[in-house]
Amino acid sequence: MRQIRTDLAMESFQGPEGGFPGVRVSHWEAMGVTLTEVIIETEAASRALGKAVGVYMTLECAAMRRRDLDARLAVANLLGEEIARMLGREGDAPVLVVGLGNRRITPDSLGPQTVDRTLVTRHMFEELPDFADERMRSVCAIAPGVLGVTGVETMEMVEAITARVRPRAILCVDSLAARAAGRIGTAIQLTDTGIQPGSGVGNHRRSLTREALGVPVIAIGMPTVIYAATLARDAMEALSPDTGEEALDHVEAELLEGEHGEMVVTPREIDDLIADAAGVIASAVNRALQPDLSEEEIAAMMN
Amino acid sequence: MRQIRTDLAMESFQGPEGGFPGVRVSHWEAMGVTLTEVIIETEAASRALGKAVGVYMTLECAAMRRRDLDARLAVANLLGEEIARMLGREGDAPVLVVGLGNRRITPDSLGPQTVDRTLVTRHMFEELPDFADERMRSVCAIAPGVLGVTGVETMEMVEAITARVRPRAILCVDSLAARAAGRIGTAIQLTDTGIQPGSGVGNHRRSLTREALGVPVIAIGMPTVIYAATLARDAMEALSPDTGEEALDHVEAELLEGEHGEMVVTPREIDDLIADAAGVIASAVNRALQPDLSEEEIAAMMN
Amino acid sequence: MRQIRTDLAMESFQGPEGGFPGVRVSHWEAMGVTLTEVIIETEAASRALGKAVGVYMTLECAAMRRRDLDARLAVANLLGEEIARMLGREGDAPVLVVGLGNRRITPDSLGPQTVDRTLVTRHMFEELPDFADERMRSVCAIAPGVLGVTGVETMEMVEAITARVRPRAILCVDSLAARAAGRIGTAIQLTDTGIQPGSGVGNHRRSLTREALGVPVIAIGMPTVIYAATLARDAMEALSPDTGEEALDHVEAELLEGEHGEMVVTPREIDDLIADAAGVIASAVNRALQPDLSEEEIAAMMN
Amino acid sequence: MRQIRTDLAMESFQGPEGGFPGVRVSHWEAMGVTLTEVIIETEAASRALGKAVGVYMTLECAAMRRRDLDARLAVANLLGEEIARMLGREGDAPVLVVGLGNRRITPDSLGPQTVDRTLVTRHMFEELPDFADERMRSVCAIAPGVLGVTGVETMEMVEAITARVRPRAILCVDSLAARAAGRIGTAIQLTDTGIQPGSGVGNHRRSLTREALGVPVIAIGMPTVIYAATLARDAMEALSPDTGEEALDHVEAELLEGEHGEMVVTPREIDDLIADAAGVIASAVNRALQPDLSEEEIAAMMN
Repeated sequence: MRQIRTDLAMESFQGPEGGFPGVRVSHWEAMGVTLTEVIIETEAASRALGKAVGVYMTLECAAMRRRDLDARLAVANLLGEEIARMLGREGDAPVLVVGLGNRRITPDSLGPQTVDRTLVTRHMFEELPDFADERMRSVCAIAPGVLGVTGVETMEMVEAITARVRPRAILCVDSLAARAAGRIGTAIQLTDTGIQPGSGVGNHRRSLTREALGVPVIAIGMPTVIYAATLARDAMEALSPDTGEEALDHVEAELLEGEHGEMVVTPREIDDLIADAAGVIASAVNRALQPDLSEEEIAAMMN
Repeated sequence: MRQIRTDLAMESFQGPEGGFPGVRVSHWEAMGVTLTEVIIETEAASRALGKAVGVYMTLECAAMRRRDLDARLAVANLLGEEIARMLGREGDAPVLVVGLGNRRITPDSLGPQTVDRTLVTRHMFEELPDFADERMRSVCAIAPGVLGVTGVETMEMVEAITARVRPRAILCVDSLAARAAGRIGTAIQLTDTGIQPGSGVGNHRRSLTREALGVPVIAIGMPTVIYAATLARDAMEALSPDTGEEALDHVEAELLEGEHGEMVVTPREIDDLIADAAGVIASAVNRALQPDLSEEEIAAMMN
Repeated sequence: MRQIRTDLAMESFQGPEGGFPGVRVSHWEAMGVTLTEVIIETEAASRALGKAVGVYMTLECAAMRRRDLDARLAVANLLGEEIARMLGREGDAPVLVVGLGNRRITPDSLGPQTVDRTLVTRHMFEELPDFADERMRSVCAIAPGVLGVTGVETMEMVEAITARVRPRAILCVDSLAARAAGRIGTAIQLTDTGIQPGSGVGNHRRSLTREALGVPVIAIGMPTVIYAATLARDAMEALSPDTGEEALDHVEAELLEGEHGEMVVTPREIDDLIADAAGVIASAVNRALQPDLSEEEIAAMMN
Repeated sequence: MRQIRTDLAMESFQGPEGGFPGVRVSHWEAMGVTLTEVIIETEAASRALGKAVGVYMTLECAAMRRRDLDARLAVANLLGEEIARMLGREGDAPVLVVGLGNRRITPDSLGPQTVDRTLVTRHMFEELPDFADERMRSVCAIAPGVLGVTGVETMEMVEAITARVRPRAILCVDSLAARAAGRIGTAIQLTDTGIQPGSGVGNHRRSLTREALGVPVIAIGMPTVIYAATLARDAMEALSPDTGEEALDHVEAELLEGEHGEMVVTPREIDDLIADAAGVIASAVNRALQPDLSEEEIAAMMN
């Protein structure tokens, strides 16, 4: 058995559904969206799949990429509900939204673009306590940038802000790499396991998890790329089904080390795709974090 | 013998250099830049390679992609000289620069971004004849957008403007698709054959050529993508050298029709790469079109 | 009596409402939006006000600038109806949408940004006649850029495309200069008089009118700036009501010629304001030009 | 005597040069750039002018705004020397560059855009100690965003990062408001007094100073706006020289409270102006922070 290089838990194992020991999988559908919940229950399964123990929820909706308004609304609704359920409601401390990734590299900019559309309110409580509506909850949001741009590890930055802000939970948003081209722009993963080293388009070096940061860390991600090496491997596997695993691993490794190492595969319309997805995710985040405000109130406050 | 899907003439044939009947190839080097001139001389060679009869000059410089200043200056100088040589100097009619491609899709935005950095002067002659410096030559520039965005075929737009402006020559700038990942952002092709149907990242439907437009059409292009299907084919060929041509064609065709059809492979840093390349090409264009102005004068007039 | 420098007809005269000879003014309100219709009926009034004979409809809604969703929807609806009424429905020839202004100068980019969000369909009829839905109407759209960027006068470009495309009407979208800061981002003017020389943030040099182009020209504009010189003049007038007209004219002229000549006054949040307004106007245009498609169908086709 | 609302110390007093008690002023010129050093020496002068005790160096060069290459090179050189002199060379701890302001509001985006062009190296020492060149010095850089976007006060963010990174000095870059339109895009101020409350286009609420942060704080700023209220006041003063101070204060106050309160005055070409200035300032910062690297090495490492 071999680990599959993907940031989506639902792509990390193959074979008959539910048949993987230590992993529970359920599927259901609502409002035209397919939801898949993968629960990795044992350390053994975690090691085998290269994914942390915890819950991974994926929402899939092909119509979202076609800019279908109903589809986008449905995904925002369902994702908002799932975030709210994972987060709980207790406590007055702020929630810290962290937009991971590099704003200047389109497929890595989902996190920063989502932060741009998130309703932040913490400063209203601190600066204008009388003004702050009782129904409003405290939210702050940062886009810490990437190591090569700042010279400061994302983890260091989040740790520093966490020590200062003392949030009740952290919500990270990140661009992911997937296995299947069809999931780019159409699948959103939500997990209570936080961010693991090596994950994401930007390849985070250290973990952002409850263990590391001392508060619950929920991660939301959408695939925006597949790696060129992965694509070639898959193409070869599909077309020469007899090729052995070792030969395929060799292909992938060779491509990764050569001139394709830093190449990514994206749809042509990636700029619009990211802007749309950031809108959907931010809408879900805003609903989940402000359960007592109407959508109209949220929109009016976004100003 | 099989046509190879690439916009670079130098990638369109394989085998011992110079050995292709009806094609003359020369190489030389200057200032750290490798120049390759491919001259397709016969209709037979044109049909065999799927490239029009004419001259194709390619400048290659790996350091350009690493943002090396000397490299960028060298490429701008050499490219400027070659454009000037191809264009000639005769006539007072304006030169029309056409930036092809879609501004909102990063790898397709080389043309529009180059137009943004081109010194246009035609309006100074028309509106302020006394002010216009005698050493200045008339240049106008348009970025006509793409069919899906305008509903007007690029060719219709260029024809309409050409009928109005009556330029002595047209200079088209476009994003290309290449075969080799190593040529993305490092190779620039200059040709007197204009733009052919099916070429470019945006896949032009009709030709922009001297035959179609009635004036010389020079095209400048830089590879910004390789197609996902091409990549998979090449990977497979490299790793299973015994695979027959037919099987490889089948791979490529399958990938093109499936979910990878509209996928493109680019470097992660594509946003910066395009901005840099547009700067280099615009600098070359400005030197070639304004041979009697100094660089300082050009920069000052760009305002 | 003195002409007032503004692109809004409703700001071009002062004094008791309706009292200006040759001008008919009506006001009404719908869905929280104030509509003002100014009809300039005589050549004498036209000369006195510096505005062409014709109909000028202004929609005002302060909530639009606060990003109120209901307000934006209401304006899009009402504006769409007024455009449809002015345009009529007859004929199968395409409507040509022209986005005037400079994409790289934020307050002048309303036109190009609106074109980006306009549903264009003309190429579907030409290229894929079977596919084109019978309920769809032919639309094409261009953003011709500005003289200093292209070296081609906007008028030349529109004339050339008009000769080629033979539209039944032209719809121009432009950024305007207003007199009152409170109208920036909150008022939209619609007129059947087209675009006049000297109007717009980019100061068009020639007219785009039915007389000049041979087809009806409808112009839609939103104020995005006030001129620094105008602001100073107004401030002075408000604060020293006794200052004579001549002294005020002198102030304005002095400021225009000095270092403030090219300065514009905008809200700080101009980037968001333009993006929002382009969305509202494009939504109205799409409804007016595609009366037989539902909003969902339009959104799905925008891809 | 009245304080003048401006972020430039050299604009904060009027009257015969050098004649202000407690303030020393010197002027000189080099390479076409005018340098003005204002030293505020006493608490009394500090209170009178509303500027902290310390050194304020302003470099002025009108040609910089005209995109003159020589001018930009000269400013980058001189500014780099002055930063290096103010900063000193001692210590191996990193220098932290802080880009203040809002990336999405063009005139407020000078800080973030400068950070984008700053060479950061700290991660090379931490992650790849063997690779790090001995001649390289440790630099990290952040663009913390603005309170309304993050819900975290800039000061909190910088404090948190400072506690973690322990820099030997902080270099802040910010967009300023000036008094004279002619200084927009042509003047750069450098000061060892850090950032004061109420300064900058984004109006910082708390100070970023050596007192507050425990390390030297150097601030670099360029005027990108003048306030609409200031403009009107100045226009009135220029044109009615007899108007008393009180009347003028009244004008300014009225305008600030009305609909012009949030209006800013900028040149039309503000987008290009900011991009250019960020390039010049980043070039100066990179030279000052990496005195042992050549420009070519810096450019190559920027990748």
